[in-house]
Amino acid sequence: MAGADTPQFVAAACNAGILGSLGAQYRSPDEIRKAIEEIRSLTDKPFAVNLFALDRQMVPSTEQIEEARSCLQEYYEQFGVSIPSTDSVKTVIDPEAQLQAVLDARVPVFSFTLGIPQAKWMEAFKRQSTLLFGAATNVKEARALEAAGVDAITAQSSEAGGHRGTFIGSYEKSMIGGLALIPQVVDAVKVPVIAAGGIMDGRGIAAAFALGAQGVQMGTAFLTVTESPAHAAYKKAIREHDADDTTITKVFSGGAARGIENAFIAANSDRPLLPFPFHNSLTRPFRRIANETGQNEYTNLWSGQSGRLAREMALSDLVQHLMAETEDVLNKLNGLKMSGLH
Amino acid sequence: MAGADTPQFVAAACNAGILGSLGAQYRSPDEIRKAIEEIRSLTDKPFAVNLFALDRQMVPSTEQIEEARSCLQEYYEQFGVSIPSTDSVKTVIDPEAQLQAVLDARVPVFSFTLGIPQAKWMEAFKRQSTLLFGAATNVKEARALEAAGVDAITAQSSEAGGHRGTFIGSYEKSMIGGLALIPQVVDAVKVPVIAAGGIMDGRGIAAAFALGAQGVQMGTAFLTVTESPAHAAYKKAIREHDADDTTITKVFSGGAARGIENAFIAANSDRPLLPFPFHNSLTRPFRRIANETGQNEYTNLWSGQSGRLAREMALSDLVQHLMAETEDVLNKLNGLKMSGLH
Repeated sequence: MAGADTPQFVAAACNAGILGSLGAQYRSPDEIRKAIEEIRSLTDKPFAVNLFALDRQMVPSTEQIEEARSCLQEYYEQFGVSIPSTDSVKTVIDPEAQLQAVLDARVPVFSFTLGIPQAKWMEAFKRQSTLLFGAATNVKEARALEAAGVDAITAQSSEAGGHRGTFIGSYEKSMIGGLALIPQVVDAVKVPVIAAGGIMDGRGIAAAFALGAQGVQMGTAFLTVTESPAHAAYKKAIREHDADDTTITKVFSGGAARGIENAFIAANSDRPLLPFPFHNSLTRPFRRIANETGQNEYTNLWSGQSGRLAREMALSDLVQHLMAETEDVLNKLNGLKMSGLH
Repeated sequence: MAGADTPQFVAAACNAGILGSLGAQYRSPDEIRKAIEEIRSLTDKPFAVNLFALDRQMVPSTEQIEEARSCLQEYYEQFGVSIPSTDSVKTVIDPEAQLQAVLDARVPVFSFTLGIPQAKWMEAFKRQSTLLFGAATNVKEARALEAAGVDAITAQSSEAGGHRGTFIGSYEKSMIGGLALIPQVVDAVKVPVIAAGGIMDGRGIAAAFALGAQGVQMGTAFLTVTESPAHAAYKKAIREHDADDTTITKVFSGGAARGIENAFIAANSDRPLLPFPFHNSLTRPFRRIANETGQNEYTNLWSGQSGRLAREMALSDLVQHLMAETEDVLNKLNGLKMSGLH
């Protein structure tokens, strides 16, 4: 949940009994170190840190940056923010330095998406007993993750909000619904599978278990809780849009991601974009202001396809609700078994 | 399952204990009457007949037909089939006559997709106690179907093979995964919801129940059974492709549908197509030959996103397997409830 994943929120999740996860993708090595320290000062429970495992950095040319940036001029002016320099865009992420920061912090769980870190990194994490969770959007990726030695695989189905994690094949063809993706990934690998995408309540959790998952990962469901740093306007948008009001767009970061449609998407879909994640640096300055001030039309409103099922309540209450609801669904299914199938 | 839904196969499904469904979309009123008679001669169990509920017929112009047809010349020649006349394309479907044929036959269940028949038809079916099942790909459609008086709603999630049933909004935005679509449709309507899309085994059935569905509709899972008229080459393709080898294409009928990628899709995706369902008439002559002779590269290989989970066995064996598997999953979930959540 990049953007809403403050150390405070991560720690609150852990203290509520779930595995909080820090999205460290856009954080510098120093910021990563500080955020992890802060999480540790707030909880003694296990937590996860997530990075994009980008294989190669296809740094855009100066011309590409200038072209894409010129299309965003109106937003820099409207929000009165400084224009990102060409150099700052080119050097926005140093994947090796980020990996080193996470490694040095000896975190309980390191999760990654959009690829697989090189073997030397995987081995280094394993030597210090950090659990490794990789994300798959199709069966080919799940097999590759298992071969690389992950401890668990997050199966990201097409319902999911935010960035698509596809790294083998095209993301368009890897828009696989959970009812299809989860059992096929479960069949393809021996490691535990964590279902992610569209899961919001006890029904979704029970369904994921029925499909063979051993855990669930929920993003959108937690964006709307009281402790979430997301703006009230964003929370409202999540709860009041329909599934067919979301779209897959690259306009915010250059990478395909699911969010609620708004004016910015409509205006920028046909404009030149930098490759992921460089475009994120171009849009970040005004999006940060838009996020903080609840200007929904000018920022990424990541949401899965089940936003209507999101609830505003305290984080620990939601966790308790989810447990009780799942129990309730399992009880009903047990009744069905006794009466309905014979 | 247009193309594989012979009266024999429909009756065999009914006799195996499930509700067989005749896809009557491309059948003339006479063919519909004869097919229903044949089903009745083979089973005394209830069955369903399915039609496209196309609101208006946007008949293409002669010029449009000529342009689209000229692009298919190579296939007419390759397969040695006669070229469909402009008139035959324009008059391919008479929706009112089809509806009248289904009505006159007093079928147990009339199901429809891609729209809602006009109120006079809905009332006529209801007067004779035919059950009405409508298909929804989003919540707006589910609400419209309920308001029109359907007895049940089939929630067609994005995993599904074959034609997308979208009739409110765009099909692209209504590619909603089952984990998101099913509970939101269940919450939006009071009538029973039937889950459709990607469901192939006991895991999928149990998951659909967990999400609140009261039934499941399975297509791809039954295409590969012994009794299925689908060619062995098609059955093999279903069982041996991955979810990300399917795509949504309009090249066969003019309507968006999910099928396995092949040479015909690759060659025709950028060519002019007639609107749905008129393009179907243009491609049908050579597709029929390709179907019958197992030439997979030249016909529609409809499949959902779970083809790998399809099995080749007798229809009645598959039905028994599905029941036993579902029971097994529910038992495991009950064990989980007792041990895992407290």
